[in-house]
Amino acid sequence: MPGAFVSIGTIRTPYFTKEEAPIQGAFRPDAVGTIEIGPEYAPGLQDIDGFTHLILLYEFDRVADVELVRQTFLGDEPHGLFATRHPARPNPIGLTVVRLLGREGTTLTVAGIDVLDRTPLLDIKPYIPRFDSAPEASEGWLAGLPERPKPPGRE
Amino acid sequence: MPGAFVSIGTIRTPYFTKEEAPIQGAFRPDAVGTIEIGPEYAPGLQDIDGFTHLILLYEFDRVADVELVRQTFLGDEPHGLFATRHPARPNPIGLTVVRLLGREGTTLTVAGIDVLDRTPLLDIKPYIPRFDSAPEASEGWLAGLPERPKPPGRE
Repeated sequence: MPGAFVSIGTIRTPYFTKEEAPIQGAFRPDAVGTIEIGPEYAPGLQDIDGFTHLILLYEFDRVADVELVRQTFLGDEPHGLFATRHPARPNPIGLTVVRLLGREGTTLTVAGIDVLDRTPLLDIKPYIPRFDSAPEASEGWLAGLPERPKPPGRE
Repeated sequence: MPGAFVSIGTIRTPYFTKEEAPIQGAFRPDAVGTIEIGPEYAPGLQDIDGFTHLILLYEFDRVADVELVRQTFLGDEPHGLFATRHPARPNPIGLTVVRLLGREGTTLTVAGIDVLDRTPLLDIKPYIPRFDSAPEASEGWLAGLPERPKPPGRE
């Protein structure tokens, strides 16, 4: 049976509210944040500097109730939750691909971050293009949607 | 504080042992498996058929103890855990990008799957290339390593 999450660090960003945060880091590639890893996990960072991109898994710790069909930030039509990246999920695990700008001890500086300040970090994985890059993938219902800003007041 | 995982379904694959499973699904793009979603989550699958690629998050439910610096399947040198995709992690969450071949009710058929049979599924996210594809990413310490089979007996 599945177990419990542990926080391995904290993500620091300039975003304190959902209204301030970009919908996805890819829309704000210049958005810079820092990741403060718990000192007990420091040895696990060895060789991470060799990667230009990382996958962050984190906990959506400030979310509404799960609705299996819902509207999202990016369109007007409701969609099945697993066809969206909406944060309110049965397992509230967020995923963002970021660029690694630098590391100082247990602090990583990253670009393209879209999460709220003080989000609990669950995992860091190296982004490995032969495993993770699929530029040919379809965009599903997102195809043709403009990269527009989030409308005010939309969760 | 982070909470607990819930299983939203089960991943079925032809792999019953670590020795049988490919190191990464990208090494076996033809490896086909199925995902059986719990019926209570069925509405969340609406519109998922429009995506060619999905991100699966699942629980590494049969792993050894966490070691923050360790050897991996892919090379001889030890590396920091967060610079690897090794399954034994503080949060044992696995991530694989798969191709969606079809859906019948709450069963999804996918290609490029690398997990053990009966792995608990935690989440499905649509793979959206403008968020998730970074073909320019470096390969870190994996650069230049051949796509070789896993040596026998290596965990």
